[in-house]
Amino acid sequence: MADTIIQGGTVVTAEGVLTADVAITGEVISAIGDGLTGSHIIPAEGKLVCPGGVDPHCHVEQMSGMGLMNADTWETATRSAALGGTTTLISHMPQLPGQRLRDAMADYFARAERGAAIDHAFHMIVADPEAEALHDDLAALISDGHRTLKLFTTYNIGLSDRAILEAMATARKAGALVCVHAENDGMIGFMKAALTDAGLTRPKHHALSHPRLAEIEAIERMCRFAEFLDQPLMIFHVSTAEGVEAVRTAKSRGVPVVAETCTHYLFQTAEVLDQPGMEGAKWMCSPPQRTPADQEALWAGLADGTLSLVSSDHAPFRFDETGKLANGAEPPFTAIANGQPGLGLRNTLMFDAMVSKGRMGVAKFVDLTATTPAKLHGLDRKGRIAPGMDADITIWDPAKTYTYQADDLHDAVGYNPAEGTTVTGWPERVILRGHTIVENGTFTLIKGRWQKRDRVGLSPTGRQAPELESMRTA
Amino acid sequence: MADTIIQGGTVVTAEGVLTADVAITGEVISAIGDGLTGSHIIPAEGKLVCPGGVDPHCHVEQMSGMGLMNADTWETATRSAALGGTTTLISHMPQLPGQRLRDAMADYFARAERGAAIDHAFHMIVADPEAEALHDDLAALISDGHRTLKLFTTYNIGLSDRAILEAMATARKAGALVCVHAENDGMIGFMKAALTDAGLTRPKHHALSHPRLAEIEAIERMCRFAEFLDQPLMIFHVSTAEGVEAVRTAKSRGVPVVAETCTHYLFQTAEVLDQPGMEGAKWMCSPPQRTPADQEALWAGLADGTLSLVSSDHAPFRFDETGKLANGAEPPFTAIANGQPGLGLRNTLMFDAMVSKGRMGVAKFVDLTATTPAKLHGLDRKGRIAPGMDADITIWDPAKTYTYQADDLHDAVGYNPAEGTTVTGWPERVILRGHTIVENGTFTLIKGRWQKRDRVGLSPTGRQAPELESMRTA
Amino acid sequence: MADTIIQGGTVVTAEGVLTADVAITGEVISAIGDGLTGSHIIPAEGKLVCPGGVDPHCHVEQMSGMGLMNADTWETATRSAALGGTTTLISHMPQLPGQRLRDAMADYFARAERGAAIDHAFHMIVADPEAEALHDDLAALISDGHRTLKLFTTYNIGLSDRAILEAMATARKAGALVCVHAENDGMIGFMKAALTDAGLTRPKHHALSHPRLAEIEAIERMCRFAEFLDQPLMIFHVSTAEGVEAVRTAKSRGVPVVAETCTHYLFQTAEVLDQPGMEGAKWMCSPPQRTPADQEALWAGLADGTLSLVSSDHAPFRFDETGKLANGAEPPFTAIANGQPGLGLRNTLMFDAMVSKGRMGVAKFVDLTATTPAKLHGLDRKGRIAPGMDADITIWDPAKTYTYQADDLHDAVGYNPAEGTTVTGWPERVILRGHTIVENGTFTLIKGRWQKRDRVGLSPTGRQAPELESMRTA
Amino acid sequence: MADTIIQGGTVVTAEGVLTADVAITGEVISAIGDGLTGSHIIPAEGKLVCPGGVDPHCHVEQMSGMGLMNADTWETATRSAALGGTTTLISHMPQLPGQRLRDAMADYFARAERGAAIDHAFHMIVADPEAEALHDDLAALISDGHRTLKLFTTYNIGLSDRAILEAMATARKAGALVCVHAENDGMIGFMKAALTDAGLTRPKHHALSHPRLAEIEAIERMCRFAEFLDQPLMIFHVSTAEGVEAVRTAKSRGVPVVAETCTHYLFQTAEVLDQPGMEGAKWMCSPPQRTPADQEALWAGLADGTLSLVSSDHAPFRFDETGKLANGAEPPFTAIANGQPGLGLRNTLMFDAMVSKGRMGVAKFVDLTATTPAKLHGLDRKGRIAPGMDADITIWDPAKTYTYQADDLHDAVGYNPAEGTTVTGWPERVILRGHTIVENGTFTLIKGRWQKRDRVGLSPTGRQAPELESMRTA
Repeated sequence: MADTIIQGGTVVTAEGVLTADVAITGEVISAIGDGLTGSHIIPAEGKLVCPGGVDPHCHVEQMSGMGLMNADTWETATRSAALGGTTTLISHMPQLPGQRLRDAMADYFARAERGAAIDHAFHMIVADPEAEALHDDLAALISDGHRTLKLFTTYNIGLSDRAILEAMATARKAGALVCVHAENDGMIGFMKAALTDAGLTRPKHHALSHPRLAEIEAIERMCRFAEFLDQPLMIFHVSTAEGVEAVRTAKSRGVPVVAETCTHYLFQTAEVLDQPGMEGAKWMCSPPQRTPADQEALWAGLADGTLSLVSSDHAPFRFDETGKLANGAEPPFTAIANGQPGLGLRNTLMFDAMVSKGRMGVAKFVDLTATTPAKLHGLDRKGRIAPGMDADITIWDPAKTYTYQADDLHDAVGYNPAEGTTVTGWPERVILRGHTIVENGTFTLIKGRWQKRDRVGLSPTGRQAPELESMRTA
Repeated sequence: MADTIIQGGTVVTAEGVLTADVAITGEVISAIGDGLTGSHIIPAEGKLVCPGGVDPHCHVEQMSGMGLMNADTWETATRSAALGGTTTLISHMPQLPGQRLRDAMADYFARAERGAAIDHAFHMIVADPEAEALHDDLAALISDGHRTLKLFTTYNIGLSDRAILEAMATARKAGALVCVHAENDGMIGFMKAALTDAGLTRPKHHALSHPRLAEIEAIERMCRFAEFLDQPLMIFHVSTAEGVEAVRTAKSRGVPVVAETCTHYLFQTAEVLDQPGMEGAKWMCSPPQRTPADQEALWAGLADGTLSLVSSDHAPFRFDETGKLANGAEPPFTAIANGQPGLGLRNTLMFDAMVSKGRMGVAKFVDLTATTPAKLHGLDRKGRIAPGMDADITIWDPAKTYTYQADDLHDAVGYNPAEGTTVTGWPERVILRGHTIVENGTFTLIKGRWQKRDRVGLSPTGRQAPELESMRTA
Repeated sequence: MADTIIQGGTVVTAEGVLTADVAITGEVISAIGDGLTGSHIIPAEGKLVCPGGVDPHCHVEQMSGMGLMNADTWETATRSAALGGTTTLISHMPQLPGQRLRDAMADYFARAERGAAIDHAFHMIVADPEAEALHDDLAALISDGHRTLKLFTTYNIGLSDRAILEAMATARKAGALVCVHAENDGMIGFMKAALTDAGLTRPKHHALSHPRLAEIEAIERMCRFAEFLDQPLMIFHVSTAEGVEAVRTAKSRGVPVVAETCTHYLFQTAEVLDQPGMEGAKWMCSPPQRTPADQEALWAGLADGTLSLVSSDHAPFRFDETGKLANGAEPPFTAIANGQPGLGLRNTLMFDAMVSKGRMGVAKFVDLTATTPAKLHGLDRKGRIAPGMDADITIWDPAKTYTYQADDLHDAVGYNPAEGTTVTGWPERVILRGHTIVENGTFTLIKGRWQKRDRVGLSPTGRQAPELESMRTA
Repeated sequence: MADTIIQGGTVVTAEGVLTADVAITGEVISAIGDGLTGSHIIPAEGKLVCPGGVDPHCHVEQMSGMGLMNADTWETATRSAALGGTTTLISHMPQLPGQRLRDAMADYFARAERGAAIDHAFHMIVADPEAEALHDDLAALISDGHRTLKLFTTYNIGLSDRAILEAMATARKAGALVCVHAENDGMIGFMKAALTDAGLTRPKHHALSHPRLAEIEAIERMCRFAEFLDQPLMIFHVSTAEGVEAVRTAKSRGVPVVAETCTHYLFQTAEVLDQPGMEGAKWMCSPPQRTPADQEALWAGLADGTLSLVSSDHAPFRFDETGKLANGAEPPFTAIANGQPGLGLRNTLMFDAMVSKGRMGVAKFVDLTATTPAKLHGLDRKGRIAPGMDADITIWDPAKTYTYQADDLHDAVGYNPAEGTTVTGWPERVILRGHTIVENGTFTLIKGRWQKRDRVGLSPTGRQAPELESMRTA
């Protein structure tokens, strides 16, 4: 007999919906079906029983490019995530200049171990291509089950094309997915200098400093690199219509590439940066928000599979700290840390749009926010309601409405970018490995667990560039 | 307690695999999970427990364009399908010249009712655009649950562009999917005349009579029609690389179009038509088989989702009858009925290639041959192993090998186009709505059931051509 | 010593401009250079000495699809053309139902012989594919020097795909260029019926009756036919951005295709049809005018060579006759003949836009309105100022401005679609084969001459469809 | 009366051919026409009177990236060019590290002044973005009439993206064309290291060290930069089919980009590098030669205008010097200077292919090798036979055949990459500004003249990236 039965709900998978009970035994789903029996009953009539959210792109307790620590610790970030219906996240392990990658991992692993209240894994940021034993460490860490890298083409941690190719080659040999922040550093530098020279330094000018073509060009380039090495690639946070098209074109050439967009690109435009005083800084992120036409193209990309998933790119900074508002004076946009909180908002905003307002429906909602994120990033026990999977379940009340307030994300950020927004649909109960960690807004702490990943969900095609093929047979 | 437990197998869904029991109660799957109990146990350790195959494109007991009846009756066709692991098919209801559509349906419905041994639905062929009350009948039949039309651009039942548009407009109002055989009739007529004039009339010349550009052009045109009316469209039997690309291009414009290919385009090339005497006629079909490069493009199209599924296009004629071999003399290819049997072969050939030989794996196999065919064509109770779905299950022995013989398809056709082919993986048990209808090659008859379809899996986008929008608001 | 020297002008060719004299001896240009001497001097300081305009797409003294004769005779049409700076035109020789093509040519040739005041050639309209000896006549007439055909995909003279392919095949064997009016007949018929059913029959609704997708689809189809047969193809009157893109795409595949647009698509939008009463009918033409965005795409297509030239598609009907205004009542748009006068306007409107307003300059003006039209359509003695060419020269005063009045086109149409438009730049002298036929608005009649054409300017590539290649070697 | 008459030849312009005399007065063409008279007659019956060749991409007396001086001085290079029918070339002015651009120009200008035997201009290589007063010098030199820059994305003189953008921005303000060597430096470095590690260092491995994707990626990136700044861009030496397609795609977006290919990509494939010993080093160049399919794509690109011209990229090094064969030992490909002689071969190889063998004809030959190179690069007095233009004329004997020997290019290189090739068509007389400098293989020295360029032939479109537009109006 099972420990727990979620009874009579509408069970949602990426394939569709069905009315059934879900049985949990220990930390695992043991059955789905009619009339299941168990010690403890959670009634779910009229509710949507979904996999717990999987947010594959967050920054937790990590130093920004400007040397400012994230507002959130593992404690606060994972609490916010859990209350928003997310049971697993992937954060970024940062390599400092000169630091050995294995040391960076040891340090970051320990912090997560100490503070994480949900399950988690790490993208390894390779920031110093000259670090000691870099490629050996990288290969070893991949083998240890850290199967995703994060590379930047810009910021002070941006890598050269050559270093990116070297990291991708190591990833291919060891079997990892490479995730990339793709924006052309030269165009951004050019625009920042031009804007600064022209005295255009308010938060709204941040949008001009990251031209759409900077994203488009870098996506095209990274896809060419993936094509060259036949290395699986994930393009992070696509924000433009042409960026979507660039991914589509690369896919049609057979390149092993996937891409995501983030909540804020779907729900915010660049206009959000144009506020009185420094207010606009609250929404600053990179790439910046774009236009309504881009939003339509992003939704279309999600619909036709060009974009595989939606992440939060949670990267919170306190508005009242150096960076967001420095020294009493109004800092230029170039001195303000980029990023906004989103771990607690992604699921509700997406549910409201996709389910309550009818865009694509609940099966696709689950697909984009849980199933595919888990699958692509190699979280084999997550993202699906099926026997044998971890019992990570979020039970949604599709009828409940909620209007966001200024400070209700349960994190350490101090503001809510969605303040004033009303959503329909609410994650009333969140279960992590069989334990209820959220029930009607009350959070219960259990220890989150690191997820070893044995493989990722995107494989090489077997066809490298002809020159590499020739070399192999030379 | 359930009636039947399929115990200990590897359960396959389009999302992935898991080890679990499957419980069947009555005709329906009642649970999936560990340690389920029931009256009757089917042990399945080491076996793959897959949804029963859904073959969405067959011709059963239907007159060919040349006035020759299919070799198969509903009895023989569905028996062959069942023995090959298929539990649901969609056949074509033909409208004869001058016949009212509702009369055509009544007649065809009755035949299927009499003979079908598996579950089934119908695509309604609209062949006479001048028939009495055509559009009224069409709308009524769609409302009755016949949610798919089949239109031809060629053969003697080919419709004019205008008639195609009218049928698509009716489909849009009533809510149906339009399936189309897309080849340019003018190019085919031109080539047939030129070949006949040149005395090039052997079976192998059939391939020349259906130029690749005939398919490419017609796919482009049909996609433009779908774009114009915003009408969901299924392109049947894509055979060329450029055809795949045409679908991909249309999708990237946001056209509500999906496409399939068929088993024979993946496993045969035009060389199969070049045999001594009339032998080549056994493999003649339209569009014809193409080249190895096209095969690679078709597989790539399946991999990236441009092609949604694989059907058999089962269209069998006896080799020894008029058509395949007329009057003792060797008939020209223009007098030979097109089509080959495939209902019994699709699953095994695809399983061998995808699972045993490793192309894309078993979850994608299930997706292409069961889940997506059911979903797109509106068979809501089929194609998935999930509580509440019909208990249509095929249990595969992944290790069993079989070499096809000349006459082992259990149909009425008299030859096997795959004769001599060895496959690994075999459908050892086939369950239709809880009843085992095939066990180790032994077929047990139960009555197949027509499937009412309330909707299909592809919706209009809401954006019609600007002229139609203008008209609506004029 | 030459007969005439045009002295000191700026001589314009498609390659660029130069300051030089032009010598004319007899009917031919004998030299270009400094200090040339001759009996008669035409001073041209400060003037632009351009090749006489070549208008390759007009309808003169030809029955419309609605059975209404053009307003213009050869006399009036060529007078209007000459006064507008055009010295050669190509009109359409129409085949009536049942008429032998050679008889149609004899008749039309005689009319032109009788009335033409400028040089001319004919596009042969193939309207009845069943006519006696059609393909023999066609081949013979091509050999006689009529090197261009005109085919329609719509109107009551629209051909089936098969008939188009047959005509193209004959053209390829005999060596001719096929020009096509490309709009999908089915979409137009569908829209006309829908609009009529909805009571939307005013002139402005004409624009809705020819959807943009009707043009786009038919261009794609015709390009596929040209690709199939490797037959040089000219797409007439491209009006949409996507039409331009379809031509560009076909060219990038290596298809021997060229395309034109017409004056009115560059200078008018569909708004011109939305006038009080029947006024809008004055501007009705097919395809209809489109949007400002399309106009920009057409200009871009001219700039990058996707579109090769600009013609007038002169097709005039009297506003006060049946068709434009029938029986006192207001006729529906479906009963109104399509077309507007343009022979007298093309050059001045293009000069004003390209030279005076600075779009692309005078060399490109000459290229688009004289050099390339002559070259592509095989008028080997026309369109260039070079020794040995016919002395067809238009001398432009770049400073003169003129504002069009209601009835100043010197034709028989009775209205001027450009009424009220002011242009800068005026053809003050027009010379046909050495004879001044226009001087400061005064027209002098000389007899126009039919131009035998030995070849056209676009050749097959040598690569037909693989099936045709296979057939040839079978 | 003119000084010289070229009598009775077939005069060729990009527009077509005509039979006429050409009169030369002083250094200028004074007339073209029949029966012209002059003091001196050059009979040209049966000959093709073409504009002197304009070779817009050469390296003369310039240090290679490996620190090796070109084999040719201005004296030897221009003599070789003249004997091959070329009367104007554009060479590269190199900036050394730390050198002020104006000093680099003064030095290089003086060398050319001293040694050039034909007319010439310079592309300014910007190699040190940190040099004193770089952008001021650049703007001043552009204003002085040096209207073309050359930037590299690779080699030790490759610029960062940021530096490229800065140079392009200066070019846009001052009015210059930016030419670029576009190959991804990271991919090349990656491959060189991999090949060296694998011990694959023979000349044939050079081809593997410059992957096709390195070119494709960099073309795409440079086109995105041109699109961003709306800066006219010339892609040098396109070698791959996908490179052609990348240019075509950029053009269709409206980017002001043009491109060239070079003789050796049309006539050599990578197989030429696979020779015994070091022989292959003679043909080493970057990008390397590719495949027959690429050659077809390059010809198609020339035919449809995607590629605008053909240059030699003359970059000669002595086979017996350090670099080509170092220290008795066989050097690795990474130590061998890239480049081959071509100034003396471009015209004859192209004439043979285009005119004698019939690809595209003589007017297009003149267009690709003289008219368009002159026009695009702003050589307003060059490249056309028209009154007022410099009398730079090459008279071709279309019937003469010649088989190349090992050392007959009249340069200082010591080998002929076309040794053994037989061409039909020969430049029997070459006239520079009215002076015969080559007659039947005899070379007569006159002093070449620097060409001030007031503008180039490709203009901005007026549409910059939206962020730059916004900034302007902010």
